[in-house]
Amino acid sequence: MVNIALVGCNGKMGKAVTSAVQSRNDCEIVFGADPFGTPAYDYPVFESLAVSDKKADVIIDFSNPASLDDILAYALEKKIPCVLCTTGYSPEQVEKIKKASESVAVFYSGNMSLGINLLIELSKEAAKILGAADFDIEIVEKHHNQKIDAPSGTALMIADGISDTLAEEPQYVYDRHSYRKKRSKNEIGIHSVRGGTIVGEHEVIFAGHDEVVTISHQAQSKEVFAVGAVNAAVYLADQSAGMYNMGNLLAAKLG
Amino acid sequence: MVNIALVGCNGKMGKAVTSAVQSRNDCEIVFGADPFGTPAYDYPVFESLAVSDKKADVIIDFSNPASLDDILAYALEKKIPCVLCTTGYSPEQVEKIKKASESVAVFYSGNMSLGINLLIELSKEAAKILGAADFDIEIVEKHHNQKIDAPSGTALMIADGISDTLAEEPQYVYDRHSYRKKRSKNEIGIHSVRGGTIVGEHEVIFAGHDEVVTISHQAQSKEVFAVGAVNAAVYLADQSAGMYNMGNLLAAKLG
Amino acid sequence: MVNIALVGCNGKMGKAVTSAVQSRNDCEIVFGADPFGTPAYDYPVFESLAVSDKKADVIIDFSNPASLDDILAYALEKKIPCVLCTTGYSPEQVEKIKKASESVAVFYSGNMSLGINLLIELSKEAAKILGAADFDIEIVEKHHNQKIDAPSGTALMIADGISDTLAEEPQYVYDRHSYRKKRSKNEIGIHSVRGGTIVGEHEVIFAGHDEVVTISHQAQSKEVFAVGAVNAAVYLADQSAGMYNMGNLLAAKLG
Amino acid sequence: MVNIALVGCNGKMGKAVTSAVQSRNDCEIVFGADPFGTPAYDYPVFESLAVSDKKADVIIDFSNPASLDDILAYALEKKIPCVLCTTGYSPEQVEKIKKASESVAVFYSGNMSLGINLLIELSKEAAKILGAADFDIEIVEKHHNQKIDAPSGTALMIADGISDTLAEEPQYVYDRHSYRKKRSKNEIGIHSVRGGTIVGEHEVIFAGHDEVVTISHQAQSKEVFAVGAVNAAVYLADQSAGMYNMGNLLAAKLG
Repeated sequence: MVNIALVGCNGKMGKAVTSAVQSRNDCEIVFGADPFGTPAYDYPVFESLAVSDKKADVIIDFSNPASLDDILAYALEKKIPCVLCTTGYSPEQVEKIKKASESVAVFYSGNMSLGINLLIELSKEAAKILGAADFDIEIVEKHHNQKIDAPSGTALMIADGISDTLAEEPQYVYDRHSYRKKRSKNEIGIHSVRGGTIVGEHEVIFAGHDEVVTISHQAQSKEVFAVGAVNAAVYLADQSAGMYNMGNLLAAKLG
Repeated sequence: MVNIALVGCNGKMGKAVTSAVQSRNDCEIVFGADPFGTPAYDYPVFESLAVSDKKADVIIDFSNPASLDDILAYALEKKIPCVLCTTGYSPEQVEKIKKASESVAVFYSGNMSLGINLLIELSKEAAKILGAADFDIEIVEKHHNQKIDAPSGTALMIADGISDTLAEEPQYVYDRHSYRKKRSKNEIGIHSVRGGTIVGEHEVIFAGHDEVVTISHQAQSKEVFAVGAVNAAVYLADQSAGMYNMGNLLAAKLG
Repeated sequence: MVNIALVGCNGKMGKAVTSAVQSRNDCEIVFGADPFGTPAYDYPVFESLAVSDKKADVIIDFSNPASLDDILAYALEKKIPCVLCTTGYSPEQVEKIKKASESVAVFYSGNMSLGINLLIELSKEAAKILGAADFDIEIVEKHHNQKIDAPSGTALMIADGISDTLAEEPQYVYDRHSYRKKRSKNEIGIHSVRGGTIVGEHEVIFAGHDEVVTISHQAQSKEVFAVGAVNAAVYLADQSAGMYNMGNLLAAKLG
Repeated sequence: MVNIALVGCNGKMGKAVTSAVQSRNDCEIVFGADPFGTPAYDYPVFESLAVSDKKADVIIDFSNPASLDDILAYALEKKIPCVLCTTGYSPEQVEKIKKASESVAVFYSGNMSLGINLLIELSKEAAKILGAADFDIEIVEKHHNQKIDAPSGTALMIADGISDTLAEEPQYVYDRHSYRKKRSKNEIGIHSVRGGTIVGEHEVIFAGHDEVVTISHQAQSKEVFAVGAVNAAVYLADQSAGMYNMGNLLAAKLG
């Protein structure tokens, strides 16, 4: 039984993690930490990790970048791993995370969904084979009309993962309407569709001579990120110091 | 039996039209006109319409904009309708086409495929209903990596068709990566995927609150344009003077 | 302002209708009726329509077939239209509904989503054109792994709608693995994919010579049915006696 | 430079292989063998391998099962590898193939397209991860209306590949319309869409809790099989005795 401390437990994702943990029997939340909102859980909620008097095996964080110092200080003091599900860290903060990972296990992934991370791994393998066989690679992502950034961070994670496998550094192309010329071989086109309440879809297209391979992922709700975070926590509880991400978790599962 | 004169019969599309006509029993090609290539047909081929000594009921043109004057002169002199399948006319040429249509039936469509033209009609109807219900509209088109223009002319035909049905003039958006803001209500995002040998795919996405309607068309070969041209010719042979397009043909079939 | 009486208000769909009404300013729920569950609304809830002392302009029913007699009796007595969103009526009950519609407006549709009903209308138009042009028609529907019936009622609504437009009565085919033969022209293949928590996807495929037209709908949540029911209620409040469905509502909107 | 002997060179696939070889500079066809049709190539064509007086490094066979004995006899006598692209061997013939592979390299794959074989490898990896995470697996394949078998041999190759990675033997389900029950965990639904001139599409769907991963392949022409066969021949020319398939070729490329 893995005992979890949940930072940011009163937020939307905190609720989703709580519910994801309740549906499993290999872990439980022993306490939460959140200075905001009204706790309504069957576990105790403290203002911060530091003031809690409970003991956990692993931390899950779904709060915001400002909590990072507190989380790392607590993880290092108690020698417990932490799963960081917050995005938007500054380069300095990323350095702090790396430094901490020399002493404890730290899990950090730009997207916590099992499906998306598998999509990235599969896309990398496909790119190795098909990229060498002159297939062209394009990414289409679709999100709701309230999203302010484009492309999605996940689309960039996919593109960066693919780039690492290619012989030549590709060029990301976001707009083809402004010039008249043929696609160059080393482009990766990235297209951002926005509309309605689409939660998130990512499609990686490998187009070759008379055949097309497509790998796609469709999220129906944000719960998939909570489920991924709990998977990561259960996996991380047993790991020694180091940086971990979903790729490591998948590799461990693939044996 | 509709007797067809085929301009540009020795080109790739001319061959496809010849083959499309052979598989039908309501029409035949009585002669071709083409100054280029080697004729290899069971119908006579002349250097131009003007020097032919045969009689046709309707002209199909798959040559190039430079032939326009000859075609219109012949159509007006012989009082026979013509189906223009060439693209890239100048505004002056478009004026000449309109002028000629006062005396004979002229069929002119940016895309001759039955499926694409149906897609446009269906998208217009969907836009009427769903546009009013606050659905967001986006278009994704996919073509081979040798295409130099983006978006495709067909994607623009679709977008223009949809625009005509909307209360407010929409803004076409080709790139979202260059700014950070929410989608505005009156955008139509148009995305141009390029890769491999994809013949042509168009997808119109209507994204609303928790539901998405998608209308898409996929062409497997350029033969679909030849088939559409023959359909248009058989339809046009009976029509009186005026401008016609695939929308008219579809409306006639829908009764 | 349209005043709505909501039967089955305490159920999952009742909650969704309540929330859909709250986001509009052209209607409100004046009272609910539900013998089950604990009311938690800002409108009064009665055990049944009959015992309420409030006045409504239109009824929305999301309860179950057993409530039909009460609803029709109330609608006929008070002379108010009703929107029936319950499925699974017996043939006798359908007769009662038709009889009632001679005196009041009754809205009855197997699927209340705007998108699905538009899909059906578009598919009928596509079938008229493409069916006559020898395109083959197939339907693929996808639902979660808890659904016990196959194909979905909506897939059958689509197939029946298409059938009405075809010259020859089609044959529905659910399994091709049991015989070795070519597809016959008048088949409509219907395929039921089941997996995970997929809310509902329907795809109508028109496959012709070298081109394919696809019309698809994807529901992300059951809220779309609530939104459709409220649209229907606002529309129906003004109608005279008769049977109405989403096709009528769409036709009215299309002008 | 790999020298290829092409059995069945006068057939449709023989022509496609000839054209695929011409576009490369690492191999050439030194002679063909075909008792049927009229040779029209710049390489000599013999009635059979046995009567040829030329020397090849590797054989590609696109004829039919009846040629097997001749091909194996020749390969064993000349000690040259062979790529068998014919389908429909009897169990006895498969035994002969295995026996021959003890002495020479034999490449045998139910589907010769690079993309399809990659799809199978990716689907197996996805099944390992997602199968263990309770995702449901379904396969949809689409082919033209002249195909007499269902499901496609390729769909079965995919399903069998996936089965090998699952803890529990799955049950293939082809029709859900004949019973009313929930999907059982160990089903793989296989759906055969037939229509128009669709060359071949395969889609593997992994549906989990609120997320869906899809891997799909779309063939635009039969040339992809010719290209795959030539790839296999160039790869096989260097291999020692044994049975090889596209999985081996992909693994070699993935390093």
